[in-house]
Amino acid sequence: MEQVEEGTELAPKFDADGLLPAVTTDYHSGELLMHAYMNAEALSKTIQTGEAHYYSRSRGALWHKGATSGLVQTVKELMIDDDQDCIWLKVEVAGGASCHVGYRSCFYRRIRIDGDDPAQPLEFTESEKVFDPEAVYGDAPNPTKL
Amino acid sequence: MEQVEEGTELAPKFDADGLLPAVTTDYHSGELLMHAYMNAEALSKTIQTGEAHYYSRSRGALWHKGATSGLVQTVKELMIDDDQDCIWLKVEVAGGASCHVGYRSCFYRRIRIDGDDPAQPLEFTESEKVFDPEAVYGDAPNPTKL
Repeated sequence: MEQVEEGTELAPKFDADGLLPAVTTDYHSGELLMHAYMNAEALSKTIQTGEAHYYSRSRGALWHKGATSGLVQTVKELMIDDDQDCIWLKVEVAGGASCHVGYRSCFYRRIRIDGDDPAQPLEFTESEKVFDPEAVYGDAPNPTKL
Repeated sequence: MEQVEEGTELAPKFDADGLLPAVTTDYHSGELLMHAYMNAEALSKTIQTGEAHYYSRSRGALWHKGATSGLVQTVKELMIDDDQDCIWLKVEVAGGASCHVGYRSCFYRRIRIDGDDPAQPLEFTESEKVFDPEAVYGDAPNPTKL
């Protein structure tokens, strides 16, 4: 326990599927850009190259972020949490957007905190897309699964 | 697809275990404090009360953050991502710490990004604990599972 929580040895704890969650924020603004997953290969590639690599659960493959869109994430700082089952990437984003829908962040809608009515509509916090997803991705399958 | 990604209806997509990941940052500094999970009840309670509720996978129970430690998180802003399977909480933390180990953030160790040597030691980025976990939690079981 001491070693995992207070030690200096990198000992990432992958889940039953071989994954751990990865949280990506903008190095300059601190804004949360996206939440994804890494397998051991993605983590190694990220450490080795300094560019964010994830594991795409929808494609079932290593995902070098920006390989298709050009929106590469350069990792300025890489952190691991207390029990070593989550990674935090602080990145600089080429092109300024990280969301496949075209927004800067994947988190562009606010849930109202207002007592007991859960039916309040979401509020958009980004009004304009940074890029046109159709122009960038063409007819590649949408990673969002319904 | 349009409705999930571009709509204003809250339609959270819980996984097979009834959970979705929740990312918690400090409202003022933007620092990533913790990564946890919510079930439907935890999300409802958070929306209703304005205080962060999670689902503790180690305890298998609703987790009102701070109920034991006093380190309650007041939710200033609550966001949901593009495909509605991740929540972002921006919080103010009573007592200034969110990590059960005693640090401000759960992410107090940095992984070095330096080419192909994976054996580099982690670097601590917080040098002093905000609180003494033994004094706060006593002999409650450690949520970190080895």
